[in-house]
Parts: sequence; C-alpha cells; structure tokens
Amino acid sequence: MRHRDEHKQQALLEATLHEVAEHGFAVTSVARIARAAGMSPGTLYLYYRDKDDLLEATFREVSRRIIAVAIEAFQAEPAEAFEAEPSTLSPAAQQLKSALCRVWNALVALGRRQPALFLFHDQFLHSSHMQDALRVANQECAAPLLDAFALGQQSGILKQIDLALIEVFMFRSIYSLLQGSSCQLPAISDASFDQAFEMAWDAIALRQ
Amino acid sequence: MRHRDEHKQQALLEATLHEVAEHGFAVTSVARIARAAGMSPGTLYLYYRDKDDLLEATFREVSRRIIAVAIEAFQAEPAEAFEAEPSTLSPAAQQLKSALCRVWNALVALGRRQPALFLFHDQFLHSSHMQDALRVANQECAAPLLDAFALGQQSGILKQIDLALIEVFMFRSIYSLLQGSSCQLPAISDASFDQAFEMAWDAIALRQ
Repeated sequence: MRHRDEHKQQALLEATLHEVAEHGFAVTSVARIARAAGMSPGTLYLYYRDKDDLLEATFREVSRRIIAVAIEAFQAEPAEAFEAEPSTLSPAAQQLKSALCRVWNALVALGRRQPALFLFHDQFLHSSHMQDALRVANQECAAPLLDAFALGQQSGILKQIDLALIEVFMFRSIYSLLQGSSCQLPAISDASFDQAFEMAWDAIALRQ
Repeated sequence: MRHRDEHKQQALLEATLHEVAEHGFAVTSVARIARAAGMSPGTLYLYYRDKDDLLEATFREVSRRIIAVAIEAFQAEPAEAFEAEPSTLSPAAQQLKSALCRVWNALVALGRRQPALFLFHDQFLHSSHMQDALRVANQECAAPLLDAFALGQQSGILKQIDLALIEVFMFRSIYSLLQGSSCQLPAISDASFDQAFEMAWDAIALRQ
C-alpha cells in the first residue's frame, strides 16, 4: 500500500467541504472532489472508501472545528468590562451567560469568515447521511459545553429542556441569522446580533 | 400562442418543489422537472421563461402556502380552554401569545406533513436566487401577522427588535427542530415542541 499523506487527506476534506457547500450533495461526485483537490480519483480512494465515507469524514472534521471554536471561547478568560456590568443575575448565572455570549460571538464570527462550514453542517444534518454514531462523536467533542448546560439546569439557571432545544435556540439560530430574513430587506446588523444573543438567553434561561 | 392550462402550471410548480427538495438546485434541470411533471420541456417553456423563472415562481407559491397556513391559524377563534388558563400576562399579551401558539402548532403540523415545503424554502432563502422583490411580496402576504407584531411592540408586549429576529426565533426554529439535533439521539418529542414554543415566546416577549 502506498504511503498516506496527511496533507492530501486534509486537501480532500477541504475540497469536499467547498464543493458540497457550493453545489450540494447530489452533483458533488468523487471525480469532481478529486479534481478540486488536485489529485486523481485513484489517489482519493487510497484515503476514503467511497463518497459516503468522504462526506462522513468531512462532517466529523467540520463539527470538530465548529465545536473547537465554541469550547475555546467558552473556556476563555472573561473580559473585565463584562464582569463589572451590573446585573440582576446571580454570579453563577452571570458567569454562564457571559461565557455563552463569548461562544455566540465566536460562532457568528466563524460563520461570517467561513460560511461553507455552516452550510455543509446544515446540509449534512438534514440528509440521510446523518447517523447516531456521528451524534455520539459530537457529544464527546462538546462535553465541556454539555456539562455546563447540565450544571446550569441543576442549579436552576437554565430551563429543564432537551439539549436539542438549547442547540436550536442558542446555536442553530446563528445559522438562520446569517442566512438573512425571508421578508425584511436590510441585512441583519451587528446590533441585531447582540439583541439576538439576549433573545437566545431568554429562551433557555429560567427567569430569576 | 397555445392555450395555457392552470393545472399544468400547478403540476410544474409541484414537480419543481419536490425535485429541488429531494435533489437540490444544482441537479434539478428543466428537462428533469418537465419529466417529473409528465410533460415535454417545450410545454414547460410555454409557462416559464427558464429554470430561474420556474424556481422563483415555486418560491412565491411555497411562501404563499406557508404564510396562508400561518395567517389562518392566527385569525382562528381561540380555543376556550386556552383562554380560561390562569396567567400573569395582560389580556392583550395573553391573546397574542395564544394566537402565536396556534400559528406555531399549525406550522409544526405543516412541516411534518409536507417537509418539502420547508426544505425548498430554506434552500431558496440561502441561494443567490433570493431577491428583495421576493421579500417585499412575502411582506405583503404576511401583513396581518406583521401588523400584529408592530402592535405588540407598540403596546410593550414584544421586544423592540427587527422583524428578522422574530422570524428566526419564532418560525425558522421550527425548521431547525424538524431537522433534529446534531448531538442528541432521540428525535424531538411533541412535549419538546410545546416547550420550544414557550422558549420562542420568551425570546421575543418583554418580561411583564
């Protein structure tokens, strides 16, 4: 067997991500992806069994990157200014809210910088490719965040709701916001993104 | 010019909707849509100039249907049981919340019954086909709902936020919920859909 090259593997994931984000699953053939990555289909098959295998590996990589950005922001040092802000929330609630606000801002910035990540993620999630094994892998990657949600629920900060609902209101809403509105003309402003974080927080948090 | 037949026009929109929902924009050719509708490409061109024209007409029809279901539920008679429920909200706030709850339930049911409608709507919204003229048309269709939001804001029931934010949290969240979660295994239950409406309300309403 020929030597496997990590750069080539990475180039294939990158090509899959961008081809699918731009053209959709259906037209994105193995030949097309190989061409976009600058290699032959034969080389591609050294790394991935078939198109499904390649799509799944790309989803794992896309999820890993999105979750890594979220976790990094979640675990970052809080900005002084935010801590000093007066609030009716308990210190623990304020700490969780401020950490989630950092995550929100980091994901908005990521979605603007690399829209293909969110586009691929959304398309894959909706497709028949999505499987429980991938959900379990995401759970493992996102463990620090999920633990914080569980703790927030135990300490009466967050509502007793399915994790899926937290995901929809706190994270998938970012994707919807980046897509724009179906009936309002101006693009969504930075000020609206800040208001939207407060809305997401009100959706998931218990009233104190 | 040959006689135009409304049934054929409708069949073409239906075929476009289902072909795009299943296969995506890129692979959905005019020839493929004509075949799915049981007619020749020549007949299709009697009704629509090109693929773009057909996609735009389908988006108008899909939006019209989704908005019609929402408006009908919004204007329906409130159920006795809901009115009798004790609440800390003012009567006007309770009335708006109960009307939006009917809209929420009607759209969840529509999304379950006809997932292709939401799928097409979401794909189109994200694509380069989306234009301001279509946003204006949607605004006109949705006027009774938009007027109620404006009134809700004037009377201190709803937050002073862009309409786009109300759309994302109150309506686009349904699409995300129907897609399922990226990291939680069981499908979203009926009880969670009810909780999700309360979350959407907390996102858009001012605390009383």
